[in-house]
Amino acid sequence: MHTYTPHTFNLPELPGLSEKQIKAHLGLYEGYVKHINVLREQIAELEATDKEKFAYAIMETRRRIGFEFNGMRMHEYYFTQLEGEASPLNADSLLGKTVSEKYGSVENFIAHITSVGMSRGIGWSVFYADPASNTLHTAWVGDHELGQLGGLPVIFAMDMWEHAYMVDYVPSEKKTYIEAFLKNVNWGIVEKRFEEIQ
Amino acid sequence: MHTYTPHTFNLPELPGLSEKQIKAHLGLYEGYVKHINVLREQIAELEATDKEKFAYAIMETRRRIGFEFNGMRMHEYYFTQLEGEASPLNADSLLGKTVSEKYGSVENFIAHITSVGMSRGIGWSVFYADPASNTLHTAWVGDHELGQLGGLPVIFAMDMWEHAYMVDYVPSEKKTYIEAFLKNVNWGIVEKRFEEIQ
Amino acid sequence: MHTYTPHTFNLPELPGLSEKQIKAHLGLYEGYVKHINVLREQIAELEATDKEKFAYAIMETRRRIGFEFNGMRMHEYYFTQLEGEASPLNADSLLGKTVSEKYGSVENFIAHITSVGMSRGIGWSVFYADPASNTLHTAWVGDHELGQLGGLPVIFAMDMWEHAYMVDYVPSEKKTYIEAFLKNVNWGIVEKRFEEIQ
Amino acid sequence: MHTYTPHTFNLPELPGLSEKQIKAHLGLYEGYVKHINVLREQIAELEATDKEKFAYAIMETRRRIGFEFNGMRMHEYYFTQLEGEASPLNADSLLGKTVSEKYGSVENFIAHITSVGMSRGIGWSVFYADPASNTLHTAWVGDHELGQLGGLPVIFAMDMWEHAYMVDYVPSEKKTYIEAFLKNVNWGIVEKRFEEIQ
Repeated sequence: MHTYTPHTFNLPELPGLSEKQIKAHLGLYEGYVKHINVLREQIAELEATDKEKFAYAIMETRRRIGFEFNGMRMHEYYFTQLEGEASPLNADSLLGKTVSEKYGSVENFIAHITSVGMSRGIGWSVFYADPASNTLHTAWVGDHELGQLGGLPVIFAMDMWEHAYMVDYVPSEKKTYIEAFLKNVNWGIVEKRFEEIQ
Repeated sequence: MHTYTPHTFNLPELPGLSEKQIKAHLGLYEGYVKHINVLREQIAELEATDKEKFAYAIMETRRRIGFEFNGMRMHEYYFTQLEGEASPLNADSLLGKTVSEKYGSVENFIAHITSVGMSRGIGWSVFYADPASNTLHTAWVGDHELGQLGGLPVIFAMDMWEHAYMVDYVPSEKKTYIEAFLKNVNWGIVEKRFEEIQ
Repeated sequence: MHTYTPHTFNLPELPGLSEKQIKAHLGLYEGYVKHINVLREQIAELEATDKEKFAYAIMETRRRIGFEFNGMRMHEYYFTQLEGEASPLNADSLLGKTVSEKYGSVENFIAHITSVGMSRGIGWSVFYADPASNTLHTAWVGDHELGQLGGLPVIFAMDMWEHAYMVDYVPSEKKTYIEAFLKNVNWGIVEKRFEEIQ
Repeated sequence: MHTYTPHTFNLPELPGLSEKQIKAHLGLYEGYVKHINVLREQIAELEATDKEKFAYAIMETRRRIGFEFNGMRMHEYYFTQLEGEASPLNADSLLGKTVSEKYGSVENFIAHITSVGMSRGIGWSVFYADPASNTLHTAWVGDHELGQLGGLPVIFAMDMWEHAYMVDYVPSEKKTYIEAFLKNVNWGIVEKRFEEIQ
C-alpha cells in the first residue's frame, strides 16, 4: 500500500504570517498526511482481523477519506503557493487574461476570492477550472470535503480554517489574514497550474 | 456567463434498467443542469438587485455550487459509461493491470466498488486516480458533494441515490441494481479515461 | 447496553401511499433501528478488541450516530403521525392558533412545510418549537442529520427521501406525494406533541 | 418576527482560559445571534422582493438555519455551564448516578466526553439524553449542525472549534484546553438540566 509522506515547502519569510503560525499550520498539515495513512492502515487491519464482523466500522472509516485526503492535498496547494517569492498575478498571463474576462479585472478576481473566503464557517475558498466546458468556478468548500467540485483541477486554494490565522489574529480579523496571505502568494505558481491544464 | 446545456447520451437497451427508470433518471440529470444555471443566474440577479443587502443570501446560494455542479457532472460520468455497447473491463488494459495490482484482480476491483456502493445512505461510489502520487482511491461521496476528493480526476462513478434504481427495485434490492448497472457498463470508456490522465 | 427495538405502527389504509410503498418504507425504518444497534455494538467490540489500535475506527464509527439515530427516530415521528385516523389541523387548537399567528393561517402553514419539503436534494421538512424563546422553526434537514436544530423538540416531520415515495411516484411527482402524505396525517397527534412541551 | 438577542453570561475568572480568549469567543457567539436574525430577515426581504424569482436563494438561505441557530444555541449551553462557580460532577446526583451506571464512574464519563472531544476536525462533544428510551448518547457534532441528534435535550456541550482555544493554545494542545475547560465547569448546572427532563 502506498504511504503518503509530508512535503517540505521552501517558504520565505511571510510578512503578516508569523513563524509560530506557519509552524503550527505545517504541524496540522503533517497530521493530515499521518491520518490519511492511519485511515487506510486501519481499514486494512480491520479487514485482516474480521472483515465480516467489522463491515460497519470499515465502511464508516472509509467514508472519511475525503476529509483526510483533502486535508492533506489542500494544504499542499496552499503552501506551494507561498514557495519562492511573492509575485502578483500577471494580467498578461493566460490566467490573468482569463479571469479578467470573467471578473472584469485581476483586482476584481482577487476581490471575489476574498469575498468567497469570508463565507460563514470554516473551510476553503477554492478556484477551479472546468476544462470540459471552459468555465471557471470559485467555490466555498466547508471543512475540507464538503462541496469540492468533483473531477476539476484546483488552481488556487485559500485556507479559511481558524487554525490558518488564529496564532496571529482573532476571528474578527480574518480579512486582515486574507490580505496578508494574498500578498505572500507567488502567483507565478498559480498561473502555471492553469497553463498546465490547457 | 456560460450556460451549461444537458448532454444527450447514446444509450443502448440496458437489461435490468427499465426505460422508465432511465427516463426518470435523465430527467433528474437535466434538473441539475437547469439548477446549476439557476444558481449562477440567481447570484447575478441578487448582485444586480442589491449586493450589500443580499450578501448573506448570495453567500449561502453560492455554497450550493458543489451540490448542483456535481449533480450535473457526476451524472455525465455515469451515463457516458453506458454509451455504446456493454464491454467488460479488459484485464490487459492499463486500467485492468493497475487495478489488478492494487486489488488482486479485476474481479476483486469490481467487488470493491460494489462494496463501497453498498455504503449506508445515498451518494456515489467513485473511483479516482491521484496522478501526483500514482495512487488509486475508491471513495464514497454522500449526496453529490460530501467527500469528493479535491482535484482528482474521476475515472468511474456509480450512482447510489435511490432515484437511480427505485423505479425498478426497492431499496432492499440495491445490490441487484448494482449488478445490473455494472453489466451494462462499457468499460472501454472507463479504460480510456484512465489512459488519458497518464 | 440499551438495544433499540422497532416500533409497530397502527396504520390505517393510506390513500395515495400504496401498501407496497409503506412496507418498503417500514423495512428501511427497521434497518435504521438495526444499525443504531450495530453501530453501538461495533464500537464496543472494537474497544474490547484493541481500544488503542482501533482508536481511529472507533471515532469515525461514533461520528455516524447522528445518521443512524435520526434515521430511526425521524421515521418514528413520521409513522406515528399516520396512526389512527387522518384528521385536519384544528385551527382552534393551541398549535393551530400558534401557527396561524406566525404564518397567517393554518393553510399558509401547510403551504410552508410543503415548500420547505420541496427543497433540493433528499432529507426532511421538520417543524420545531423553541420553548426557550417561544419561537417556531421550519427547517430542512439534509439526509437525516445535516441541519437538525440542537436540543429542540420535533413537532412534525415529513420524509423527503426518495424512498418515501418512489414506489408510487417518480421524483418529478414529489409534490403529489407531499399532498397525499399530508392528507393522511392525523394532526391530533401533532397538536398533542406541541401541547406536551408547553 | 421574533428577534434573538445575545445572552449575558455571569462568568467568573476561568483559570486556563484567558480573558482575551473568552472575549473573542463571546464575540463569535454574538455573531451567531446576529446571523440567525440576518438569515430570517433576508428570507423575509427576498420574499417581499420577489418570492417566485428568488425561490432558489430563499430555499438555500433557509437551509442554513441549522448552522446559525445551533451556532447561537450551542454557545449558550457552553457559556451557561461556566456561570457561577466551578463545581465537580456530584457522584450522588441523579446525573452522577446515571452516568456512573453507564460509563462505570463519573471519571470514566469525563474521560469519555474528553475522548469524543478529541475527534478529528472541528465541532462539539455533546451529551444528550433520550427520554423516550431512557438512554444517553455522547455524540460528535461536526461544525454546529452536522450530526445533532434530532429532538433530544442537550445536557452538556463542549466547543471544539479552534476558536474556542486558539487564543491560548495551538491545535496540538487541544487536550490541555479540554482539561482547562472541564475544570471550570459548574456541573451543578449540568446536573439540573438532566433533572429537569425527567
